Amino acid sequence: MEKLLYTGKAKQMWQTEDPAVLRVVYLDQATALNGKKKDHFTGKGKAANAISSLVFDYLMKQGIETHFIKKLSTNEDLVKKCEMFPLEFVTRNVIAGHFASRYGLSEGEELPSPVEETFYKSDELNDPFINESATIALEIASKEELAQMWGICRKVNNLLKPLFAKANLRLVDFKLEFGRLSDGKIILADEFSPDNCRLWDLTTKQHMDKDVYRRKLADLTQTYDGVLERLEAVMKEEA
Amino acid sequence: MEKLLYTGKAKQMWQTEDPAVLRVVYLDQATALNGKKKDHFTGKGKAANAISSLVFDYLMKQGIETHFIKKLSTNEDLVKKCEMFPLEFVTRNVIAGHFASRYGLSEGEELPSPVEETFYKSDELNDPFINESATIALEIASKEELAQMWGICRKVNNLLKPLFAKANLRLVDFKLEFGRLSDGKIILADEFSPDNCRLWDLTTKQHMDKDVYRRKLADLTQTYDGVLERLEAVMKEEA
Repeated sequence: MEKLLYTGKAKQMWQTEDPAVLRVVYLDQATALNGKKKDHFTGKGKAANAISSLVFDYLMKQGIETHFIKKLSTNEDLVKKCEMFPLEFVTRNVIAGHFASRYGLSEGEELPSPVEETFYKSDELNDPFINESATIALEIASKEELAQMWGICRKVNNLLKPLFAKANLRLVDFKLEFGRLSDGKIILADEFSPDNCRLWDLTTKQHMDKDVYRRKLADLTQTYDGVLERLEAVMKEEA
Repeated sequence: MEKLLYTGKAKQMWQTEDPAVLRVVYLDQATALNGKKKDHFTGKGKAANAISSLVFDYLMKQGIETHFIKKLSTNEDLVKKCEMFPLEFVTRNVIAGHFASRYGLSEGEELPSPVEETFYKSDELNDPFINESATIALEIASKEELAQMWGICRKVNNLLKPLFAKANLRLVDFKLEFGRLSDGKIILADEFSPDNCRLWDLTTKQHMDKDVYRRKLADLTQTYDGVLERLEAVMKEEA
């Protein structure tokens, strides 16, 4: 029988009959303020899954290994089971969100070089900011592992910035997570959807990501469906 | 006439007749909670200045360049004028204080490797944590300048850990600040006193630093006088 391993803010992870494979269920919900705000959005899970599947598929074709195996249904995937690093890897191309408020900066300015920040995943500690020396000293990841994961983040940024630009979207910032397979190999895991990145329309500067929910700017599912439509059109051109 | 350039939490900086020289006045006050708590302590400025002068003098004899020129009176020094980097460089040998609470750890455990953290000095932003990539992208300091300053921090740690150990004190953590002379050279500035470090008695584990004020454990001036007495005894043995 299938066992529910974990319920996150927007996904559930289920054990399957194959011990090396998990089933991910994308939920029709969104949260903000570290889970303090939570709402239901019909169709949101389907849209987030479709976007993430397209992006991971694209990254895999470009040689980046991910946990993604295949889509099972509109809101379900099969993925490789990993031991996750309890770290969020955030890459920022443009000043926005917490980064802007933390340093008293205004949103929208392009950074001369991408800012790379890690956060220690802990709901009770509110996902605190952590730097390399603390990550190493607290034995969360080694210097070599961090270098490997940041290397993948940089490749992803270099691939996705132009991809989203073709969809007339500016990739402002994004969060990635990584896991280790049973053979020790580090691969990209979690998801890539507008839940975990900021996308701004290049022409209108309109927000097309979870900020429409955080800041009450537009309907969340419609926004994600809009991103999906654009990405699908770009993928057709690419193919 | 002398001009007051800056009043900090525990010191004032005055311009002197020589444009390359400042006069520092150590105040008889202590603050906590980013200045929200503030109290007067007779003799505290004198003790902090005496400790910092002894430590800077020791570091200079070991080849580390600092802004310190000489003591003018019990609570005044002459120092070289620098353009300060708006950064605090914190080195942690042992888990304590904010580091413990931020990551849900208990105080007192020795770290397998020192944790090195920078904070962006801004009273209105509450001195936020900042990492290397943001420091570089926001042009606060270059990668080379950061490497140089952390290099000095490591030398200081390697010199002061054994020095304080001789005074039966454990150097738990400390904060340094750096400035640039008019010729571009980066040197250690600010101060080294129990206002900016944690010192625990190696035998009794008693706090002998500003935590006695933050946590209401003992008299602040008496505590600093105790540290000074021990350091003076160690210096006599060294000489």
